[in-house]
Amino acid sequence: MHAPVEIAESAANMLARLRARAPRVHCITNTVAQQYTANMLLAVGAVPSMTISPEEVASFVADADALLVNLGTFDAERRAAIDVAIRAAKAARMPWVLDPAFIDRAPARAEFARQLVGRAPAVVRLNTAELAALSGGDPAGDAAARFAKTHGTVVALTGGVDRVTDGVRRAVIANGDPLMAAVTAMGCAGSALVCAALTVEPDAWLAAAAAVTALGVAGEVAAEEARGPGSFAGLIIDALHGLDAATLRARSRVS
Amino acid sequence: MHAPVEIAESAANMLARLRARAPRVHCITNTVAQQYTANMLLAVGAVPSMTISPEEVASFVADADALLVNLGTFDAERRAAIDVAIRAAKAARMPWVLDPAFIDRAPARAEFARQLVGRAPAVVRLNTAELAALSGGDPAGDAAARFAKTHGTVVALTGGVDRVTDGVRRAVIANGDPLMAAVTAMGCAGSALVCAALTVEPDAWLAAAAAVTALGVAGEVAAEEARGPGSFAGLIIDALHGLDAATLRARSRVS
Amino acid sequence: MHAPVEIAESAANMLARLRARAPRVHCITNTVAQQYTANMLLAVGAVPSMTISPEEVASFVADADALLVNLGTFDAERRAAIDVAIRAAKAARMPWVLDPAFIDRAPARAEFARQLVGRAPAVVRLNTAELAALSGGDPAGDAAARFAKTHGTVVALTGGVDRVTDGVRRAVIANGDPLMAAVTAMGCAGSALVCAALTVEPDAWLAAAAAVTALGVAGEVAAEEARGPGSFAGLIIDALHGLDAATLRARSRVS
Repeated sequence: MHAPVEIAESAANMLARLRARAPRVHCITNTVAQQYTANMLLAVGAVPSMTISPEEVASFVADADALLVNLGTFDAERRAAIDVAIRAAKAARMPWVLDPAFIDRAPARAEFARQLVGRAPAVVRLNTAELAALSGGDPAGDAAARFAKTHGTVVALTGGVDRVTDGVRRAVIANGDPLMAAVTAMGCAGSALVCAALTVEPDAWLAAAAAVTALGVAGEVAAEEARGPGSFAGLIIDALHGLDAATLRARSRVS
Repeated sequence: MHAPVEIAESAANMLARLRARAPRVHCITNTVAQQYTANMLLAVGAVPSMTISPEEVASFVADADALLVNLGTFDAERRAAIDVAIRAAKAARMPWVLDPAFIDRAPARAEFARQLVGRAPAVVRLNTAELAALSGGDPAGDAAARFAKTHGTVVALTGGVDRVTDGVRRAVIANGDPLMAAVTAMGCAGSALVCAALTVEPDAWLAAAAAVTALGVAGEVAAEEARGPGSFAGLIIDALHGLDAATLRARSRVS
Repeated sequence: MHAPVEIAESAANMLARLRARAPRVHCITNTVAQQYTANMLLAVGAVPSMTISPEEVASFVADADALLVNLGTFDAERRAAIDVAIRAAKAARMPWVLDPAFIDRAPARAEFARQLVGRAPAVVRLNTAELAALSGGDPAGDAAARFAKTHGTVVALTGGVDRVTDGVRRAVIANGDPLMAAVTAMGCAGSALVCAALTVEPDAWLAAAAAVTALGVAGEVAAEEARGPGSFAGLIIDALHGLDAATLRARSRVS
C-alpha cells in the first residue's frame, strides 16, 4: 500500500516528468471541453491533439503517447472515430482513458460505454451518477472497487471527495474546491490529466491518484485568489502550470 | 405594469431560485458559444447540457427544464436536432428560447428561423439586424412590440440599450457595458440565461427582463475591474455568480 | 526594404484602421480554436463569423472582407466548405490566409494543404514542422523564402522568433513570450489576426509582419502581469485590445 506521502511525491514526480518529456495526448472529446482540455494539457507540459475525423484519427493516435475517449458528444461519426482510435492505441500498446460523460442521461450512450469497458481502458474517470449507469445501477457500498476488480481497470470516481481504486488499493483524496464544479469541462479536463499521467507512470492506479491529487491541490491554490468561477477557470490552469513538490507535500490530503 | 424596482427584485429572486433549484437547461447552440454558455449557466447555478446529436437530443431535452435553440451553426444535422428537440420540449410543456443568431447574414437561416417562430418560443432573443431579418425587413418604430404581439411571444432585443416586450408590457434596460460586445458569444450566453430564468419564473416577459437586467448589472460590475475584453470575459462570470439583491437594487436602470 | 520602425508604425496604423472600420473576417477553423480566434478578432475591432456549413459558407464569405482557412479539423464536410469558401473569396477578389495546422501529423491533410497553396493564399502562417511538411520535407536554410518565391505568397513562420517573407523582403521579429506556446490556438488566432490585417493593408508582407509584431508585443505586455498560461490567455486579449503606437514603437524588435 502507498502512504499518503507517496502519492504527493508521485504527483510531484509526474509533473516533473511531463514537463521534461512533453508527451502527446490525443483526445476524442466533446466540443464543449476541447479548448479547456487542451489548455490544461499544455499547462502540465503535454502536447494535445483533438481531431475526431475518422479519416485521420488513426494517424494522430499512432503518433501519440496516450489516448483519451470522452463520450460527451455522441453520434455515428464519433462512435466510428472512437473505434478506430482504440484499435490504433491497442496496436501501439498505448494506455487509454475512458470518460463516460453524461451516460446517466442517455441510455444508448451508457450501452456504448459498457462495450468500451470491455476494451480494457487503463482508467475510467467518472462521477457517482455515471458509475451507477455504467455498473447497471449498482448502488451498494463499494461499487467503484468492485467495478475495478471485475473489469481489471482503475476507477477514478471524482466528486466532493475523490476515490481512486484498482479493486485492491484505494486512495481517498480530500483536495479540491467547490468552484471546480462551477467550471464546465473540469471533469473532462481532469480525465485528460489522468491520461497524461499514464504516459510517465506505468502504474495506472498511482498515475490516476497523482493526477487527481495534483488537480485538487491546484484547485485549492486557485480558489485563494479567485473572485468566482470565471477567474477560477484561468487560475487553476496557472496553479497547475506552477505546481511544485513543496506545495503538493504541504497540501495533499490523501488517505 | 411593473415598476423598475419590481424587475430588480425579480432578478434577485430569480438568482436565488436558480441557485436553490439547479434546473437543467439543454442548449442546442453553436460550437463557438458552447463553452462560454455552459460556464454562464453554471455561474447562476443551472446545469447545462449541450449535445446536438439527433439520436440523443430527445432524451436530454426530456430530462431538462428548458430548451435553448441557437441558430449560430446551421446544417442539415442541426436542423434535424432542432426539430426533435422542440417536439420533446412541447411534449413536456417546457419553455424554449429562440436565438436566431446571424440570420441577417444568411437567407436560408432566416427562413428557418421564421418557421421556428411558429412553434411558439417563450422568448426570442436577438439584436436589431436579426429582428429586421426575422420580421421581413420591417424597419419601423416599434417593430419588437409588433412582432411580439403578432406571434404571441416575448422579444428581448439587446444592444446598447436592451428592450424586452410581450407586445403590451415593455422594459427598457440601460445596464451593461460596451465590453460585452467585445466578447464572442455574449449574446448567445445571454439567451441561455433567459432560458434558465424561465425555469423559475413562469411570466416569460418578467423572466426575460430579469435575466437581461442581471447580465447587464454583472457587466457593469465586471467592467470596473477588467483591463480589457479578455479579463472581462471571466469577470462577468464571477460577477454573475456573486450577484446579490443589494447590487441589483442599487444598479438596475430599468424604465 | 522596410526599416524596423516602419513595421512598428504599420502595426499601429493597422490597429487604428481595424478599430475604425470593423472589417468582417470569416473563419473556417477547428472547434478547439473557434472561441479564442473570435475573441482575438473582436479585441482588435474585427467582426468574426465562423460557420463551416457548406450550405451557408458562400453567403458568409461574400459578405466578409477576408477569409481564414485553418486545417485544424479535417473531414469531408470541412474540405467541401473550404472549396466553396475559397471560390467565394476569389469571386470577390478577397484575400485569404492558409493555416495548415498539424499537417506534419497527417499525410492526407498535408496533401490537401499543398493543393490549397495552388489557389493563391495571400499569406501562409505556420510553424517549422508544418513548413517542412508543406514543402515536401525541404530542410535546408531559407526554406520559407524559397517557398514564398516559388508559390508567389507570403510565409509567416512563427516560433521562438517569427520570420515573415515574400521571397524578397524579410522581417525577423523577436517579440513574444514563451507563454504563448502554452495557450491552445494561439497560432490559429495569430493567423486570424494576419487575416484581419489584410483587410486594411494591401501589402500582404507588411500586413503579416505588422500582425505578428502586434501579437508578439501584446504577449510581452501580458506576460508581465500573468501568473501562468490561464491568466495569460485573457491578458494577451486585453493587451491587444489596448495596444497603442507608443508601446509598439518602444517594444517592437524587428530586424
